[in-house]
Amino acid sequence: MLGCWRATTVIAAGSGWWARCLRGRCCCRRRLLLSMAKSKFEYVRDFEADDTCLPNCWIVVRLDGRNFHRFSEQHEFKKPNDDRALHLMTKCAQTVMEELEDIAVAYGQSDEYSFVFKKKSRWFKRRASKFMTHVVSQFASSYVFYWKDYFKDQQLLYPPGFDARIVLYPSNQNLKDYLSWRQADCHINNLYNTVFWMLVQRSGLTPVQAQDRLQGTLAGDKNEILFSEFNINYNNEPLMYRKGTVLVWQKVNEVMTKKIKLPKEAEEKEVEVTRTRTKVVPLHCDIIGDQFWEEYPEILAEDS
Amino acid sequence: MLGCWRATTVIAAGSGWWARCLRGRCCCRRRLLLSMAKSKFEYVRDFEADDTCLPNCWIVVRLDGRNFHRFSEQHEFKKPNDDRALHLMTKCAQTVMEELEDIAVAYGQSDEYSFVFKKKSRWFKRRASKFMTHVVSQFASSYVFYWKDYFKDQQLLYPPGFDARIVLYPSNQNLKDYLSWRQADCHINNLYNTVFWMLVQRSGLTPVQAQDRLQGTLAGDKNEILFSEFNINYNNEPLMYRKGTVLVWQKVNEVMTKKIKLPKEAEEKEVEVTRTRTKVVPLHCDIIGDQFWEEYPEILAEDS
Amino acid sequence: MLGCWRATTVIAAGSGWWARCLRGRCCCRRRLLLSMAKSKFEYVRDFEADDTCLPNCWIVVRLDGRNFHRFSEQHEFKKPNDDRALHLMTKCAQTVMEELEDIAVAYGQSDEYSFVFKKKSRWFKRRASKFMTHVVSQFASSYVFYWKDYFKDQQLLYPPGFDARIVLYPSNQNLKDYLSWRQADCHINNLYNTVFWMLVQRSGLTPVQAQDRLQGTLAGDKNEILFSEFNINYNNEPLMYRKGTVLVWQKVNEVMTKKIKLPKEAEEKEVEVTRTRTKVVPLHCDIIGDQFWEEYPEILAEDS
Amino acid sequence: MLGCWRATTVIAAGSGWWARCLRGRCCCRRRLLLSMAKSKFEYVRDFEADDTCLPNCWIVVRLDGRNFHRFSEQHEFKKPNDDRALHLMTKCAQTVMEELEDIAVAYGQSDEYSFVFKKKSRWFKRRASKFMTHVVSQFASSYVFYWKDYFKDQQLLYPPGFDARIVLYPSNQNLKDYLSWRQADCHINNLYNTVFWMLVQRSGLTPVQAQDRLQGTLAGDKNEILFSEFNINYNNEPLMYRKGTVLVWQKVNEVMTKKIKLPKEAEEKEVEVTRTRTKVVPLHCDIIGDQFWEEYPEILAEDS
Repeated sequence: MLGCWRATTVIAAGSGWWARCLRGRCCCRRRLLLSMAKSKFEYVRDFEADDTCLPNCWIVVRLDGRNFHRFSEQHEFKKPNDDRALHLMTKCAQTVMEELEDIAVAYGQSDEYSFVFKKKSRWFKRRASKFMTHVVSQFASSYVFYWKDYFKDQQLLYPPGFDARIVLYPSNQNLKDYLSWRQADCHINNLYNTVFWMLVQRSGLTPVQAQDRLQGTLAGDKNEILFSEFNINYNNEPLMYRKGTVLVWQKVNEVMTKKIKLPKEAEEKEVEVTRTRTKVVPLHCDIIGDQFWEEYPEILAEDS
Repeated sequence: MLGCWRATTVIAAGSGWWARCLRGRCCCRRRLLLSMAKSKFEYVRDFEADDTCLPNCWIVVRLDGRNFHRFSEQHEFKKPNDDRALHLMTKCAQTVMEELEDIAVAYGQSDEYSFVFKKKSRWFKRRASKFMTHVVSQFASSYVFYWKDYFKDQQLLYPPGFDARIVLYPSNQNLKDYLSWRQADCHINNLYNTVFWMLVQRSGLTPVQAQDRLQGTLAGDKNEILFSEFNINYNNEPLMYRKGTVLVWQKVNEVMTKKIKLPKEAEEKEVEVTRTRTKVVPLHCDIIGDQFWEEYPEILAEDS
Repeated sequence: MLGCWRATTVIAAGSGWWARCLRGRCCCRRRLLLSMAKSKFEYVRDFEADDTCLPNCWIVVRLDGRNFHRFSEQHEFKKPNDDRALHLMTKCAQTVMEELEDIAVAYGQSDEYSFVFKKKSRWFKRRASKFMTHVVSQFASSYVFYWKDYFKDQQLLYPPGFDARIVLYPSNQNLKDYLSWRQADCHINNLYNTVFWMLVQRSGLTPVQAQDRLQGTLAGDKNEILFSEFNINYNNEPLMYRKGTVLVWQKVNEVMTKKIKLPKEAEEKEVEVTRTRTKVVPLHCDIIGDQFWEEYPEILAEDS
Repeated sequence: MLGCWRATTVIAAGSGWWARCLRGRCCCRRRLLLSMAKSKFEYVRDFEADDTCLPNCWIVVRLDGRNFHRFSEQHEFKKPNDDRALHLMTKCAQTVMEELEDIAVAYGQSDEYSFVFKKKSRWFKRRASKFMTHVVSQFASSYVFYWKDYFKDQQLLYPPGFDARIVLYPSNQNLKDYLSWRQADCHINNLYNTVFWMLVQRSGLTPVQAQDRLQGTLAGDKNEILFSEFNINYNNEPLMYRKGTVLVWQKVNEVMTKKIKLPKEAEEKEVEVTRTRTKVVPLHCDIIGDQFWEEYPEILAEDS
């Protein structure tokens, strides 16, 4: 009997075994063995570690494109900013906010997006792996799904990859400083890239020459190059490039026209119905100063 | 001056500010402030926790479809097994193995896939979040990217989500037991589903009636129902359904025809060139017994 | 040579080896081997996991006596409260606060003590294991060291054990609720124990009978038993029993008499010198209400 | 009523409150409030993180003396090795092995000791904090408790501190390499210290001079200094200094003399009774080579 057991490697059967066993004496044993098999291996579940996030902290998941330098070249992204790519990123982030639970605000720039889950969120018992992988997989599948809406004829050549990490912030100030850090990063990178690509595209410098030219320059120097050499006032550059994109929940009124037929009336009537919905809305504003947080107090509200 | 600082909320400027400041006295200060701004916030990086995986352990990332019950209904998956869906899963898993580093073997069934990274892998310094999110995002983007190759006219209605978790296994036996656990699970589910859908599709039972009928039955009972009522020998069901899919690396010889022209000869010549490549190959075999591990010793090899 | 290497198992030498090798040819090799040996094994350091505590959180280490039920019986602790034992616990906790860094406040009752490290503490890079083990080892060695000062003739029979755990609290409210939880626990246990031991010591009930009597009683019931049967008003019981012990840092003026001799004067003079020192002071007050926190605002102060 | 509640800060009572309330209407409410109070705060338990150790790994707890440089000077330890101190360390480690569960082997040198818990240990559900703090507190209390047995008249001046850390090793080879690393460290330090203190104590060098003399020397150089200048063959130094101390479990036969009186016999008779006990035994042998592990195969045995 044990031979039968072994030959069939616990749960299954080589050819012929079933025919022999179906009406044979080994059936009762087999039933037992089958349920034993599963439970014999189930001890491996105990190796899974608990990765619950500390309660009462903001949970931030930041996502980055994998090898997007190469990806942007192969898909001919406009430099230094490609509107199609930025809008696609934001579309994906909106999808993430709408599909997952408890995201209070998101911030994106370049090929990265940060999602902020509410302090009190109990989604998936606050398991870190759930937060990270749901965000990144929803974003990645959306990126391919919505690609053609933004890139039209530009074919997507291969499925892109992303990574994500999770960070906890205990206080509101910590969270605001995190988002300020990302927006300061956006500013510094965009200012650099704006000058860099002007030098390359307009002045005909090679990338290495442009890099050398910018080595050691401060923000003010870069502003001056833009102004004196290219007649560009950096502050007139589009806000989306300079500030990145903030995604917030906003109540919007939707007016719909409905046809209704009242029982006592003979004819259908058109009625306007106003419905208040909460939607994800993109903003391109400063989030380092107080003004943004005063305008959207619900983001940091205590029940959050 | 500090007013200027505050008004511009650290790094940037409202409209008009730059014009005022560009030639004004505040420029030097501004340069300083801009670099201060970034570094002032950078402390938030210290909140990121180290999630390095213990060395010398197998790293398993298991991925699951999110709400695939609903997804499979909306996309009219054939029950109990849809070949298109299973082949698409496997295509995505192959992409993951080829795009990422150090995956020794993978195993999939239904809407889940497990990826086993080598014990000695140093990829991304063994950071758990990197492993999980790279796997799940590459899989998710591939799912949408390759959808039409498998589902043809069946439109993808929305971008699907996945989650993933990471588990460490210290010994080879633990790893083999993990994979056995998943294959035993495949068997148990597939046997159940095969009978369940026979009862629904052929015998006209409602899902609730079919469920009631199967309540409390053992594997042997289910085999008997299949055999006596539907004349199905479960062991003749396709291996892919009963065993799931194992992805292994295999050396394959690729024969190509090359045209070459030697300097001293007048004409081009066709030459056959054989190149040995390592490819990801799907198998549908038992992995609970010893045979598989004896045939593919390189999977558990010590340098792995 | 390799024989020599093996026989000496890398770093050392069996008898006779040194004599042979000291002037022999193997010395150069040995020098090399010795340094190789250490570095060959040093990879095992990479297995140590990072256990840094999240910044900007209160770090609480709670310590408990191991098997103190047995310990208290073997050392004839007075029931329900033994002043010697409680004062010894507090002495040990004071030692911990004075010897370690950054402890803002501590709270103890029965055989447990909680130590609260400042939010901003950078002690040992906030490594959890350092906090836990330093606290518990300093406490344990102090317990034996100071035993005789409190227990006099009562001999310590064996070295006691303790355990400790670490918990992070992101907000001040969380921390206050933690301490309230411990003080509420003190109240509930002490009320129960006070009645229980009255029933045993005064009414002659067996422990099981006393337990049965108290089963299902609420706080009010217990107060009534104490009042009606033993003429005890629970609120007149000592505060240390009812509230436990809070350890806070307090500025105290120490007046010392110093003898000084001024150069121009012939004789020594006695001078009183007042020095302000910060000392650990025990309190037995309520810490659930606001009053305590208003009196000691420095505990929760932002720079903490 | 609520005023009463607030004034008493949930669970307790200012003076006079009880008198007022005992027969008042607020009693029922109070009973309720008291049980509510505890549960209101109990949410803070959820902040405790799970720190379960990965199954099937060796759990090593290594303990170190805190500021033992200062401690050894204040207690006049003999340099470079003080037998009293080393024997006390070993006594404490024996106590730890005997009092706690599942320690397979321990290794100590200087002011450190490593304790190896069995791979399969389920002690305290493998919670890391339990392992670390039980080890270190038992060791610390034992150090003070047994001090006088080893240091006689040398008074212990203050309670010493220790720290501990926990490390997991998945394979037997990893564990052996860990212990080899510690013994190689013992060798390197002891060789250095032996020469250093000879230069200071015998040649009259200052510590700084001795340090300069040894800067950059290899093991062979140090051996030569010992041999040529002090006529010391390092390999004749005591094994305990050169190899440290290994603690293993050994079966020992204890022969006791018992007096028994058989019912039918008139007189008591003395009988020798041999009992086999498992005891912790100190060894000072090489543990880097294979011999030790061959002699004590039970340490690494699979059921361990």
